Amino acid sequence: MTTRLSHLFLRTLRDNPVDAEVPSHQLLVRAGYIRRAAPGIYSWLPLGLSVLRKLEQIVREEMTAIGAQEVHFPALLPKEPYEATGRWEDYGDGIFRVGDRKAEEVEPGVRRPNYLLAPTHEEVFTLLVKDLYSSYKDLPLNIYQIQNKYRDEARPRAGLLRGREFIMKDSYSFCLTEEDQQAAYDAHRAAYVRIFERLALDALPVDAVSGAMGGSASEEFLYPSDVGEDTFVESPGGYRANVEAVTSVAPEPRDHQHLPAAEVHDTPGTDTIETLVTAANATFPQDEREWGPADTLKNVVVAVISPDGGRQVAVIGVPGDREVDFKRAEASIGAQLGIAGEVSVEAAEPKDLAQQAGGIVPGYIGPGLSLEQPQLGAESATGIPYLVDPRVVEGTSWITGANREGQHVFGLVAGRDFTWDATIESVLVRDGDPAPDGSGPLTTRRGIEMGHIFMLGTKYADALGLQVLDENGKLSTVTMGSYGFGVTRALAALVEANHDDKGIIWPSAVAPADVHLVATGKGEEIYHAAEKLSAELEDAGLSVIYDDRPKVSPGVKFGDAELLGVPTIVVVGRGLAEGNVEVKDRRTGEAVQVPVGEAVAHLRERAATLR
Amino acid sequence: MTTRLSHLFLRTLRDNPVDAEVPSHQLLVRAGYIRRAAPGIYSWLPLGLSVLRKLEQIVREEMTAIGAQEVHFPALLPKEPYEATGRWEDYGDGIFRVGDRKAEEVEPGVRRPNYLLAPTHEEVFTLLVKDLYSSYKDLPLNIYQIQNKYRDEARPRAGLLRGREFIMKDSYSFCLTEEDQQAAYDAHRAAYVRIFERLALDALPVDAVSGAMGGSASEEFLYPSDVGEDTFVESPGGYRANVEAVTSVAPEPRDHQHLPAAEVHDTPGTDTIETLVTAANATFPQDEREWGPADTLKNVVVAVISPDGGRQVAVIGVPGDREVDFKRAEASIGAQLGIAGEVSVEAAEPKDLAQQAGGIVPGYIGPGLSLEQPQLGAESATGIPYLVDPRVVEGTSWITGANREGQHVFGLVAGRDFTWDATIESVLVRDGDPAPDGSGPLTTRRGIEMGHIFMLGTKYADALGLQVLDENGKLSTVTMGSYGFGVTRALAALVEANHDDKGIIWPSAVAPADVHLVATGKGEEIYHAAEKLSAELEDAGLSVIYDDRPKVSPGVKFGDAELLGVPTIVVVGRGLAEGNVEVKDRRTGEAVQVPVGEAVAHLRERAATLR
Repeated sequence: MTTRLSHLFLRTLRDNPVDAEVPSHQLLVRAGYIRRAAPGIYSWLPLGLSVLRKLEQIVREEMTAIGAQEVHFPALLPKEPYEATGRWEDYGDGIFRVGDRKAEEVEPGVRRPNYLLAPTHEEVFTLLVKDLYSSYKDLPLNIYQIQNKYRDEARPRAGLLRGREFIMKDSYSFCLTEEDQQAAYDAHRAAYVRIFERLALDALPVDAVSGAMGGSASEEFLYPSDVGEDTFVESPGGYRANVEAVTSVAPEPRDHQHLPAAEVHDTPGTDTIETLVTAANATFPQDEREWGPADTLKNVVVAVISPDGGRQVAVIGVPGDREVDFKRAEASIGAQLGIAGEVSVEAAEPKDLAQQAGGIVPGYIGPGLSLEQPQLGAESATGIPYLVDPRVVEGTSWITGANREGQHVFGLVAGRDFTWDATIESVLVRDGDPAPDGSGPLTTRRGIEMGHIFMLGTKYADALGLQVLDENGKLSTVTMGSYGFGVTRALAALVEANHDDKGIIWPSAVAPADVHLVATGKGEEIYHAAEKLSAELEDAGLSVIYDDRPKVSPGVKFGDAELLGVPTIVVVGRGLAEGNVEVKDRRTGEAVQVPVGEAVAHLRERAATLR
Repeated sequence: MTTRLSHLFLRTLRDNPVDAEVPSHQLLVRAGYIRRAAPGIYSWLPLGLSVLRKLEQIVREEMTAIGAQEVHFPALLPKEPYEATGRWEDYGDGIFRVGDRKAEEVEPGVRRPNYLLAPTHEEVFTLLVKDLYSSYKDLPLNIYQIQNKYRDEARPRAGLLRGREFIMKDSYSFCLTEEDQQAAYDAHRAAYVRIFERLALDALPVDAVSGAMGGSASEEFLYPSDVGEDTFVESPGGYRANVEAVTSVAPEPRDHQHLPAAEVHDTPGTDTIETLVTAANATFPQDEREWGPADTLKNVVVAVISPDGGRQVAVIGVPGDREVDFKRAEASIGAQLGIAGEVSVEAAEPKDLAQQAGGIVPGYIGPGLSLEQPQLGAESATGIPYLVDPRVVEGTSWITGANREGQHVFGLVAGRDFTWDATIESVLVRDGDPAPDGSGPLTTRRGIEMGHIFMLGTKYADALGLQVLDENGKLSTVTMGSYGFGVTRALAALVEANHDDKGIIWPSAVAPADVHLVATGKGEEIYHAAEKLSAELEDAGLSVIYDDRPKVSPGVKFGDAELLGVPTIVVVGRGLAEGNVEVKDRRTGEAVQVPVGEAVAHLRERAATLR
């Protein structure tokens, strides 16, 4: 196939669009692959669509290879199945809801939503299998679709990296036994590895948390990149996890029988860890060593926001040398507080403190001592849930606030002098923290999440009643897995991984063409030769973008070729007088002169090598 | 490729689903191609998706053949462009609207819509061309997409025939000259003809009205079928038009100088045309001939409902032998009454008469005489718009109501004794009516609308400011065409055209496989032979559905094969003892015995013939 630039619906841009900050966003727009239609919503121009379809096809082939069957669900779905699983509410503002003509009209032109644009399709896949299948003989089953997904992101950003309408491949496995489910999970994992191999993209599988999806185990596939929104850690021994899934290495609980009683001391003007440590060493020194921030217990007041917008205050106690990581806290705090769905966590604002946290003395907060101070804890007089970092274990002794302005408690012992409602992972993981599996110190990195695979267990089957008859004729609940692959996000990650300051450098597997043929110069013989070469390349099975624009300068043509990013650029120009064309590698910039008569064979061989 | 029924995600149904009344709906569900997810919203199972993708590919190839370039727009779009063209309001309840998280919250969980699910994409195509192009050198341009479309139909019905989420190919042409625009229109028309040829579907192009799309000329492609929702007419001379587009053959205006003055007569108990004609002949006979219904002027009160739900009363005057066709009236009455967007027309209800039509005397309505009766007409004292059939021309003389209970006027002359606000096509077209082009008497038929092509003119370019520099450096407005092809509806039409009482009979071009291979019997050698044959067919480039289910009876297997509708059924069974397999034509039911060793060659040849 030959695409002529004189005809192609394309406009390249010299400058980056003002709203684009990351390379993939800048380059995909500048090269005329996509255009923004609304925040987080993009239109696909011909070359972009061509790349997208190739990427989809690779995903499709690898799904077929593991026996998964393609289906296609609606994007617009009724709310009832999502109410049955609780996700209609749990998603909060994160999904688009629609009121159809039969929905209650609240005021003219405004209807109460009764449909949604699906953010993911567990519910209806489950219901379809329930509709069609009834026996263990029908299982295991793997089905998938490649579909538009919709999420009403609070902050759509970075072009395709975080969109509101985007394309996902989502697979679902249905099994009766844990072994079959593990096999389906492993097959998907292997398929993802192959997809990334074909894309020549160094994606890393990392342990992850399941979040609002429910389920037991999950892994993400991340492309390491500073523009990614996910943080993950790795150790020299091969441990890798999303930072949200990292478990802290905690000390063993200790006997606290012989520890001295806690004492309250005046510590005026010490409402930061730094001033507190200085004051402690100056006024209440220890014999053996200096007090450090890790000896203090910092109590951070946070607001936990439910899917319905409700705010609840909680206090998290962490060692004073640690910072609270709200995203990590979000992964588990909702479950601990009995809030269904995805919560968000942020620093408490004065309004939160005023409304819900009476008695809290900022800068001097403590979990409570058996004195007259307010106690923290869901069951306490304050009613404020108190959660602690895993490092706060029975028998550890702390300097912490005494809940009075200018006073701290020394030697407050966990389990003896204070209790807590739950332990949660909530502190920022730092470079050098030990890996939980003992494989060495962790390094933190950023990454783009392109895939996420889940063992769902029976959450959806339970909620929607998916049971089949087992070998003994008894009804048995089906166990499920779900496997997402962000097609449009992976496309953006490909550009992040393959570009330079001149433009995109597509891997051959998804490039919009095999060859970008540029004719430069004014002689008719040049255009004749280029025409002939493009026809011969097409006959040889290569796809060609042919820059046949007659009145465009060589500089603009070369610039466009480098911006568009086809792996091989062929120039028919000055060299033609000596019977040569130039064949240039887009990635290395290396160019060779090839006799016109050998060009087709040379390019065919090159394309075969690249593929 | 081989698809094994032991593995395929499929469940065929013996009985028609209760909600399915037309064959395509019944069979597509029964054969496990689609399943309903919500009213007018369907999920695609593997075989259905396979047929759908083949159909899309045919459409794509024919679009490519006329130089159209594929792009892809979002389904979720901001309202602003649709407000600029007025369609945000014009569509009324006919589109799905969405309020995103930034939209005003009217009450908890209910937001004022600021997005829509696109029913069609003229606006954003226009804006994208405006964004990319600026010169006459860039035109003509033809771009298209194959996309989900959304319409909130009042009465989704008949499975894929009238859905709320469905797939369309929509193309748009952008030109500077009428000649180029005509060429783009003609090219699309020819492409549609080729698509239907490839599908072996007898689709008829018919003249159509442009409706809410705006624009000058349009044609529909209809598949003649009693289950279709469109009515069209044809004449022996080759005239074909959607009934909404038929123009009536009207008499010439006549001189009314010598006509006698109108007279009011008592006609008690004549509130129907039938009783009126009887009374007229009995009491006020003419010399030359009897009065007939066509001598009377029937005035029908209708309610015209705007997109915003407002109701307005109008009266339509038609010859007494004619019935008002509300759908035909809908095509033009809105424009005549100054209502933007698609209106619907229905018989006026008592509430309409009570509220807006004071003075109207049902059964005795007349357009008014220069007496003391209420006059009809937008400018009259009643203010009720009065519209007439084209047969009501200047100088025609009528018996009609006198606007008094029990009285009619005789000899009321159009243009002398009464006037009207506008002439509109609004009566039911009858078999035998003359074709407007003189090509003979019309026959009415029903059809399924699969395509609709429009010359749009500059409606969208004007509204959205799409201008380019012409050859003289002057800004010139672009003229557009838009070309819809209902992919999912065409798929349903294919089933309407290709089925029998046993199931679907796919045309080879879109069949889910070339061969449906059935193994029947208990011997292992049968399954061995069938396995081998399926592998050989796959090697020979044929796609196979292989019924390898071990414990399913031959009757069920044959029934499923006929229901699924692959054009060639091959049975490996009893005949194998004599070294034969049976090759059966699904359409004719004819079967031949073919030696196993020749089966591949035979089937390859047969597939080539069918393609």
